[in-house]
Amino acid sequence: MNVTNTIEAVRAMRWQNPTATWGLVPTMGYLHEGHISLVRRARAENDFVAATIYVNPAQFAPTEDLSSYPRDLARDLALLQDAGADLVFTPDNALMYPAGFQTFVTVEGVTAVLEGAARPTHFRGVTTIVAKLFNIVQPTRAYFGQKDFQQTVVTRRMIADLNFNLEFIVCPTVREADGLALSSRNTYLTPPQRAAATVLSRALAQGIVLLNAGERDGDALRQAMTAVIAAEPLARLDYLSAADPLTLAELAQVGEMALLSTAVFVGKTRLIDNMPWPSLTAVTGGQ
Amino acid sequence: MNVTNTIEAVRAMRWQNPTATWGLVPTMGYLHEGHISLVRRARAENDFVAATIYVNPAQFAPTEDLSSYPRDLARDLALLQDAGADLVFTPDNALMYPAGFQTFVTVEGVTAVLEGAARPTHFRGVTTIVAKLFNIVQPTRAYFGQKDFQQTVVTRRMIADLNFNLEFIVCPTVREADGLALSSRNTYLTPPQRAAATVLSRALAQGIVLLNAGERDGDALRQAMTAVIAAEPLARLDYLSAADPLTLAELAQVGEMALLSTAVFVGKTRLIDNMPWPSLTAVTGGQ
Repeated sequence: MNVTNTIEAVRAMRWQNPTATWGLVPTMGYLHEGHISLVRRARAENDFVAATIYVNPAQFAPTEDLSSYPRDLARDLALLQDAGADLVFTPDNALMYPAGFQTFVTVEGVTAVLEGAARPTHFRGVTTIVAKLFNIVQPTRAYFGQKDFQQTVVTRRMIADLNFNLEFIVCPTVREADGLALSSRNTYLTPPQRAAATVLSRALAQGIVLLNAGERDGDALRQAMTAVIAAEPLARLDYLSAADPLTLAELAQVGEMALLSTAVFVGKTRLIDNMPWPSLTAVTGGQ
Repeated sequence: MNVTNTIEAVRAMRWQNPTATWGLVPTMGYLHEGHISLVRRARAENDFVAATIYVNPAQFAPTEDLSSYPRDLARDLALLQDAGADLVFTPDNALMYPAGFQTFVTVEGVTAVLEGAARPTHFRGVTTIVAKLFNIVQPTRAYFGQKDFQQTVVTRRMIADLNFNLEFIVCPTVREADGLALSSRNTYLTPPQRAAATVLSRALAQGIVLLNAGERDGDALRQAMTAVIAAEPLARLDYLSAADPLTLAELAQVGEMALLSTAVFVGKTRLIDNMPWPSLTAVTGGQ
C-alpha cells in the first residue's frame, strides 16, 4: 500500500496502467467499519483501490468541531491496509487550499434543506473537495456511505450535472448491535450519552414500522418519530424529516418511496441518521 | 472526422486508445481564423484533436445576443476538417442542461472585475460549461484564445483550484490586417462600424507605445487610451483597464507586466480586445 501526500504520486500510480479500474473511497479519517465496508466493496469491484484521508475545513462552519475532529492516522492506515487499499492520499491544507484559492462547486436545490439548512456552507465545502478528489484520482467508481444520505444525493447531482466520468455507488449504513449508526463522532459521547444515542435509530425504525403498516401521512410519521426523540431526556431534536429521496422535499403523503432522516444533539454532539423506505436500492435506483 | 451530439460517442472515441493524447478546442461555433489557429496548434501537439461547438446559454445575460449569435454548422465543420480535427462534439441544450440541472462552478475574485463586472453571470456560465466539457472529453491539453483574456485567467484558476488533470494553453489573438481582433461578433458590424472598430486595437497599441517609452503611471495610460476611443464618434466606451495580468486588479503603477484591455460598444455590438505587456508569454508564465 502506497501512502502519499502529493498529487503527482497519486497520478503516477493511477496512470501506470491506463486501462486498470480504480475505486475511490474519500474519508475524513478516524475510520470505522462503515468506511471499511466501502473499501471492501471497492476492492471487490476494481483492480485498484484508492482511499483519501482529509479533514476538509471547507465543510465545517466556524462554530463546528473541526479542531476537535478525531484523528489517528496510524490506526487508519493499518485498517486500510487490512481492507486491501492500494493507495492512500493524505493531503494537507496547503495542498488542497493554497493561497489564492477561489473556486467553488455549488449544488443548489437539494442543498437548501435538512443538513444544508442546518449547516449553510457545508455542502459547498463537500462538493468542492469531492470534485477536487475526483480530478486528482480520476476513479472508475466512487464509494459513499448511505449514512450521509443527503451528501449522496448532492454528490450524485454534481456528478450528473458536471458530467464526471465515473460510477457512483452508495453502500448501506453500518450499525452497532443496538442500532446506533457508526460515526467517527460517536467517540465524543459519554457512556450515558452513548446509551441515549440509540434514540435516532429507534425513532426512524418506528417510522419504518408505521410505513410498513400502511401509514402514508407525512405529518403523522414525523410526529410519531418526534415523540420517540422527545421521550429521551439527553436528546435535543435538530430536525426530523420524511422526504422525497430524490428532491429531499418534505412529503405530505408518502408515495412509492421515502427517506426518513433526523439530526439530534446528544450533549454537544450532533448525530445524524436516516432510513430509506422501502429500501436503499429502491431509493437510489439500484446503486 | 467524427461529428457527434452524444457524450457516449465522445467517450468511446476518447478512450479507444487510453494512452493517446488529446487536445480540446471549445468553441461557440461560427469559426474564424482565431479558432482555427487553436485547432492547428492542438493538431501539432496531440495525437487527436476534439473541438466542441456549443452556444452556451448560461454565459449570456437575458439582455444579450444569445438568440442572434451567428451560427453556421456546415461551414464550421468544413473548417474543422481542413484544420485536422478528429472529433467534433455538437451537444444541444437538453443534453448540457437537462431538467433538474442545479450545479455551478464559480470562481470568485478574478471574476469580479472587467467582463465579470459588466456581465455578472457570464463567468459562472463559462466555468460551468468548461468544467462539463473537460469532464466529457478529458483532454490532455486545452486550447483557449488570448482574445478572451479574462476567460483564460478564470479558467486557469479553475483548473488549478479544482485540480483538473490537463495542460492549459493560451494562443495569441489573431487580427485582421488593420488590427481588429477576429470575433464572431464582427459580423454584426455595418461597413462604417467595421471601420470604426479598429479603435480598440488602436487605443491598446497606443498604451503599448507609452509603456515601451517608459510610462508607468496607470492613470496616465488609461487616460491616453480612453482619449483614443473618445475620438471615435461611432464608439462608446464600456471599460478600459491597465491591470495586473494575474489578479486583474487595476494598477496605480505598472511593474514588470500589465494587461491592457477594453470593451467598447460600436453601435449595439459590444467588442473586447486586450494587449499584454511586455508579451503574452511573459504574462501567462510561458504558456
